[in-house]
This record gives sequence, C-alpha cells and structure tokens, in this order.
Amino acid sequence: MPAFKMTLCYDGTRYRGWQKQGNTPDTLQEKLESTLSRLLSQPIEINGCGRTDAGVHARMQVCSFRAETDMKCSELMAALNRYLPEDIGCIDLQPVPPRFHARLSCREKTYVYRVWTGKQPDVFERKYRFTFTEPLDTDKMASAAAYLTGTHDYRAFTTAAHMKKSTVRTVSEIRIEKEGNELRFIYTGNGFLYNMVRILTGTLLEVGTGKREPEEMPLILESENRSAAGFTAPPHGLFLWNIVY
Amino acid sequence: MPAFKMTLCYDGTRYRGWQKQGNTPDTLQEKLESTLSRLLSQPIEINGCGRTDAGVHARMQVCSFRAETDMKCSELMAALNRYLPEDIGCIDLQPVPPRFHARLSCREKTYVYRVWTGKQPDVFERKYRFTFTEPLDTDKMASAAAYLTGTHDYRAFTTAAHMKKSTVRTVSEIRIEKEGNELRFIYTGNGFLYNMVRILTGTLLEVGTGKREPEEMPLILESENRSAAGFTAPPHGLFLWNIVY
Repeated sequence: MPAFKMTLCYDGTRYRGWQKQGNTPDTLQEKLESTLSRLLSQPIEINGCGRTDAGVHARMQVCSFRAETDMKCSELMAALNRYLPEDIGCIDLQPVPPRFHARLSCREKTYVYRVWTGKQPDVFERKYRFTFTEPLDTDKMASAAAYLTGTHDYRAFTTAAHMKKSTVRTVSEIRIEKEGNELRFIYTGNGFLYNMVRILTGTLLEVGTGKREPEEMPLILESENRSAAGFTAPPHGLFLWNIVY
Repeated sequence: MPAFKMTLCYDGTRYRGWQKQGNTPDTLQEKLESTLSRLLSQPIEINGCGRTDAGVHARMQVCSFRAETDMKCSELMAALNRYLPEDIGCIDLQPVPPRFHARLSCREKTYVYRVWTGKQPDVFERKYRFTFTEPLDTDKMASAAAYLTGTHDYRAFTTAAHMKKSTVRTVSEIRIEKEGNELRFIYTGNGFLYNMVRILTGTLLEVGTGKREPEEMPLILESENRSAAGFTAPPHGLFLWNIVY
C-alpha cells in the first residue's frame, strides 16, 4: 500500500497530547486518523515523529501513514485543511517509499521552549510562552546546558520511565537565545524522553535564578532520580520545532 | 479628585466589545471598572479612547478615570495585572491633569487590520488575522485607499448611524504594507465610526479582487449609503494599534 509523509503544525492548547489513549477523543492522533479515514473511506493509522505531551504545540510535526487512493497529494491536503479544525494545519503531503516511518526514520529533532521574561503581561502570545519574571543569569544557564549536552542516561529528566527501556539519549545541542524579552531554549537531539525537554528547561531556569549551580548537573544525571532535577516547565511554552530525515 | 491615564492591551476574542451594555458582563469596560472598583474600594467609571467592537483587539488602548487613593501608580498597576484576566494587560498608569479625557483629548488614532494571504493554514495567529486567499491587486487597493483618505462624510462606511450625529471624519492616512504573507491595512485619523475600519477593509479587499474599481470610491462616499460599500471584514483581524495625545 502506498505510503505518505505528512507535515503538520498545531496549536496544542486544547489537546491531550499527540498520542491516542483508548476512548479519549481530544488527542491529535485520533483527530487526524478520524479525519483521514473519513476522507479516504478506509481505516487509517498514523505514526507521528514526536509524541508531544498535552498542551504542547508543533511548529513542525511529521507523521506517516499508508492508504490506497486516487487523490493527488495536493487535493488530499486541501481537503484535509478544509475538514481539520483551525488549530491543526497540514503544510505538506508527499508520497514516500514504503519503508519510511515518521519516528524511526527521523535523524534529528529540535524542540524550542519559549519563555517570556518581560515585566508587562504577555497578552497576545500567552498561550505560546511561559511567563517567568525572576532575573536570570544566562551565563550560568549556558554552562549548565553544556553539562546536559551529549550522550547521557537522562532518567533523572523524565517522568514515569519504564525500568526496562533505555533512557540513554544524545542531545547534540542546547542553545539559549534572547530576542527582546523572549528567551528561547533550543534542544536538538536524536530523541527525547517523556517530559524531558520540560524538565531540562525547569532545571535550567533554576540554575538561572541561582537555586542550583551548573556544576550540579553531572550529579543530577548520575542520580538517575527524577526528584534530583528541577521543576517541569508548563507545556504551553514548548514547541516541536523542526525534524530532519 | 485625581485623574489617571491607563494604557492597556487586550485580546478581544471573548469580549462583546469595549463598551458597557446594561447587564452584559463580557465587556472590557465592565471588567476593568469592576476590577478597579474592588481594588480601590470605590465606584470607578472609566472612559476609553476607542470603543472597539466585539472581538476586536487592542495593542494599545488608553482610558481615563478619577479616584481617591494613596496607592502609587506602580503598585496599582501591579495589583491590576494580578487581578485582571490574562487576556487584558495594563502596560502603563500615570497621573494626569483633571482635564484629561481619554477620548476627547486624543489627537490621533491608528487602527491596523491584519490579513493572512498565505495558502497554508494560519494556525498560531488565527485569532489575530483574517485569512483571505484570493489574489489581490495591491496597486489598485492603494489607489482606492487614496480616494478614501481625507475629510469625508463616511456615512456609507458605518452601520446604524444616528441620523443627527455628524459622520464626517478625517482619515489622514491609509497605508497598505506587505510582510511575507501578511497584509496590513493601517488607518490613521481623528476618529472612526462604528464598524468603519472593517467596512473600509472589506471594500478595499473587493477592489483587490477586481470586484470593484478604485474610481468607484468617491461614488460610494457620495452615496452615503451603507449598501454601496463592501463587506464588513470580521473583527478578529482588527487592532486598535496606537493613540497620540
């Protein structure tokens, strides 16, 4: 059966995350599968590259599915954008070789966590940025980020890890950029554990306020203990930003 | 009693406009008056500079009120931002001479109407831009805009005008700017009638698609007849943008 690669963006505010969960209707996967199934008159199963948590957004998400259809990709994409709710957009759709799998074929992913540091209320972007107004030492955050980069067991930076599954990941870069009153934490790697980017961000913010020192980072990694790391930054500041195949 | 000038921004999505209407709770004026009255333990009446329609946003709105208080402006502003909902922000608060009146003292106002012309769905800014994907002739829209600039009777560009009140206004500039896939209609003038900016925008868009010619603009103005003008562009693309005193 022909395979397709679909690129999406979505505002995750009102969804319980990417992944289908039994009878819960408000997941992105469920919404996309049911819309595609109706449009193509056949049951469709999709695989997403990043399983974003509840409330997390995607500037770029990629998923794959198989279907028999005579429709052109451009027609199917236009139909999808007519039937999908306005907080989900399909931005590209292409045929791919049958081996392609959105998650397994992915080489690298980037997540961006956006923080609003201004004193003034963030009225228009409040659903896309986490407001954090304590003064932050960006040099210290950058040193802590360097310790957290590389290939490590990130068990301390995830919630509810399965004891048997590997929690080793490679984070090739953590960059912190300032644009006016916005601070962006940019994470690139081969994969991220459940809540990992949000816990990394919470920990880096605690370094920024002086609650923790950059030198503690290796100890947190070694502890393999969630309670050694910082708080889980809220979902609404997080975006799945880019995916490389 | 001391007078104050308060500068606000708000996301108008869930409000029935600026102006208080009997028992309707969801107006910006009512929300601000009730919050200020509670904070200052006295009944407060506020005057807004622009009476934005239901669903219209403000990047900058100015209002004035009088109150007896020992609080510093910075304290009152911080308290307001704690108690106001997150879709309203107070960005400045200052004492002013008692003669100051937010609407009557205003010299010039700018409204910006934002249009998304991209083929891709406008997921993240969908509440702040009107999607309009028909091809537009920007030169023709600019000529039409020139006809609509100046001091005119804009009765044809308003809804439900009172027969007795003057509908003459001066629009000093209508500028059309393109930034990527966003088109901005920027209106500056001494005052605008009910729905006027939205009807001007709808009319200019109809010129852009070729449904109307720029040369028709003087005839529409002369007609003093709402049905001669174009459609009323939806509220969510419109921002009260700037106010000059």
